[in-house]
Amino acid sequence: MNTAPVKSFDDSTNVRIAEANNPSSSVVHFPDSEPLRLACDQLLAPISIAYQTYGELNADKSNAILICHALTGDQYVASVHPMTKKPGWWETLVGPGKPIDTDRFFVICPNILGSCMGSTGPASIDPKTGQPYALNFPVITIGDMVNAQVRLIDHLGIDQLFCILGGSMGGMQVLEWASSHTERVYSAVPIATAAWHSSQNIAFHEVGRQAVMADPDWCAGDYHAHHKVPCNGLAVARMAAHITYLSEEALHHRFGRSLQRGSELTFSFNADFQVESYLRHQGSTFVDRFDANSYLYITRAMDYFDLEAEHGDVLANAFRGTKTRFLVVSFTSDWLYPTRESREIVRALNAVAANVSFVEIETESGHDAFLLDEPEFFATVRGFLNAAGVKRGLSK
Amino acid sequence: MNTAPVKSFDDSTNVRIAEANNPSSSVVHFPDSEPLRLACDQLLAPISIAYQTYGELNADKSNAILICHALTGDQYVASVHPMTKKPGWWETLVGPGKPIDTDRFFVICPNILGSCMGSTGPASIDPKTGQPYALNFPVITIGDMVNAQVRLIDHLGIDQLFCILGGSMGGMQVLEWASSHTERVYSAVPIATAAWHSSQNIAFHEVGRQAVMADPDWCAGDYHAHHKVPCNGLAVARMAAHITYLSEEALHHRFGRSLQRGSELTFSFNADFQVESYLRHQGSTFVDRFDANSYLYITRAMDYFDLEAEHGDVLANAFRGTKTRFLVVSFTSDWLYPTRESREIVRALNAVAANVSFVEIETESGHDAFLLDEPEFFATVRGFLNAAGVKRGLSK
Repeated sequence: MNTAPVKSFDDSTNVRIAEANNPSSSVVHFPDSEPLRLACDQLLAPISIAYQTYGELNADKSNAILICHALTGDQYVASVHPMTKKPGWWETLVGPGKPIDTDRFFVICPNILGSCMGSTGPASIDPKTGQPYALNFPVITIGDMVNAQVRLIDHLGIDQLFCILGGSMGGMQVLEWASSHTERVYSAVPIATAAWHSSQNIAFHEVGRQAVMADPDWCAGDYHAHHKVPCNGLAVARMAAHITYLSEEALHHRFGRSLQRGSELTFSFNADFQVESYLRHQGSTFVDRFDANSYLYITRAMDYFDLEAEHGDVLANAFRGTKTRFLVVSFTSDWLYPTRESREIVRALNAVAANVSFVEIETESGHDAFLLDEPEFFATVRGFLNAAGVKRGLSK
Repeated sequence: MNTAPVKSFDDSTNVRIAEANNPSSSVVHFPDSEPLRLACDQLLAPISIAYQTYGELNADKSNAILICHALTGDQYVASVHPMTKKPGWWETLVGPGKPIDTDRFFVICPNILGSCMGSTGPASIDPKTGQPYALNFPVITIGDMVNAQVRLIDHLGIDQLFCILGGSMGGMQVLEWASSHTERVYSAVPIATAAWHSSQNIAFHEVGRQAVMADPDWCAGDYHAHHKVPCNGLAVARMAAHITYLSEEALHHRFGRSLQRGSELTFSFNADFQVESYLRHQGSTFVDRFDANSYLYITRAMDYFDLEAEHGDVLANAFRGTKTRFLVVSFTSDWLYPTRESREIVRALNAVAANVSFVEIETESGHDAFLLDEPEFFATVRGFLNAAGVKRGLSK
């Protein structure tokens, strides 16, 4: 019987806990005297925001681009991940001469509040107890994450960001910035995202959370204190989520019904099919790098996101009076954030006469397309930033 | 912290084990001297097939309709389930005066091999050990299930079935019957199904199996011997599967982002959204009535199903020479077995000049539509059976 490899608290766990509290990247600390008021009305302090930067901020601080990462992303957008040693997750898009050209722009990528790569989250040590926050961490929202990013941008002395980009949950942050801090956003690129999380997406998140919480090693959130990790539950959550990141066509073309070992079925519960083995690997590697409680908190923040409800059930109200230049991007085979949800954003922007372009990229790669090598997507981002840069008076 | 209700071995478990071994329905036993040779080349004996019948078999035994149930279905197609006390799962379709008219037809519905409602499966007592088979049960296929049904039809003295109908995995059985036992099938109605299980569907099944096997109470399959039940793992598996049975539109219209308690978020991991509460309920009630190992074995049989590969990668070969009259039915919003997969069946049947009708029913109910009140679907089935009945010389 071949089940997912059973892992537990090991060296990689210690590295992960260390990274959550003493990140390899830059970090700014806001003391107890500067608490963040959260949507749940609690005050959170102290706060750390870990971040990476690429390129140089120009003299008038007008060339800064903020990149917002997705659920399980991090600040290592264009540099090696300190734990996995893999290249940055958007190195295809960000770097010298790349569509987001670090020879021209100053790129900032913070780890979001609630995550586990150095920004304050449930794996951080609560200074009041000396133990990880775990479930004592407050339930946060996309708005809270953005307000924490505002602190970072203030700290860097930047009045207005030239552009904010992000895919998936990163796109939610882009929309939140453009709505709540419109004067600080010259241009905005929400990618493969939505103004509110759909019922189906909430349902998939709930399955993932139940998988984590059903794992006895979750210990009601106190797994680190018990020297355990809910590896099996988190791996199952990741496997289920991973299916939603791909399209049916992509799975079909990549794996189809191909077998692992030649062409023989084993008549067992081994990973006969390549797609089974692939999914198990996705689950297993994920638990090495991600905190289970962070997964619960961040999925919850996504579920709670509803820019329409927050603006009297009229999405256009979220953008009324905006001067920001928008580029909205969707992908044809993305069924997690289908094109129709991007069109709703575009419709709302049109309703307030905003400056908005919309591009739907033809691809079979599903939601994951925003992380992959998609030449038309790259060309679209490059073109938009060039044109916006000219308008903004940035030198080539 | 509100997680899924933690259940364990209780009275309902005892009822379930009793039902698996001494079903409330009719049952036919095949002794050790009549083993079934399985696709894995093992011999299985003895074998019990539990079944329900409705209506009367006519004198020349020409009015029998076999109904094949889906993954978690059972033989109680048009009568109360002995454990849940709910009405039969297809009472809308089967009964006196209904589209499958039991005043006219003799309806047989067997519990499939590998299930847990009285036909031999992993929850059955292995007479050699006096313990449940658990993982000593051989991995079976859709073909094995059908071969066991052939035994039942022989036992009932029926040479040719007037019709075989089934949805989802039931449809796979219909296709297998029509391919391997074509002379015994006058007409066949595969509904919301496919000739092979897709990569995405294998992936979802694998998530479900990993959820079950990750539950420590699964005990490597020996949970009954340990007086346990892997309730949490099976509930998570069911929740994930349940999402795939519905369409995004159906979830949106039924639940949207509606909250459980008025309009306030609780800033917790409680089931704030109605869709969360609904899913938890689906998971929780499922574990009361279904055996976790049966879930593993039956999903595996579905994954293994590939009528095309079994016929030299040419699906048409599966039906060459067939005289069976086919009605293929799909539903527009079914993304588990999308219409294009039904079209492949139709194309293969056309390629061998088979008698085939194809109807795609417009609905937003997703895969589950085949179990719901769909008037156009009902009218289609009624019309097909009436016309085929006339051809077959059955009196009205």
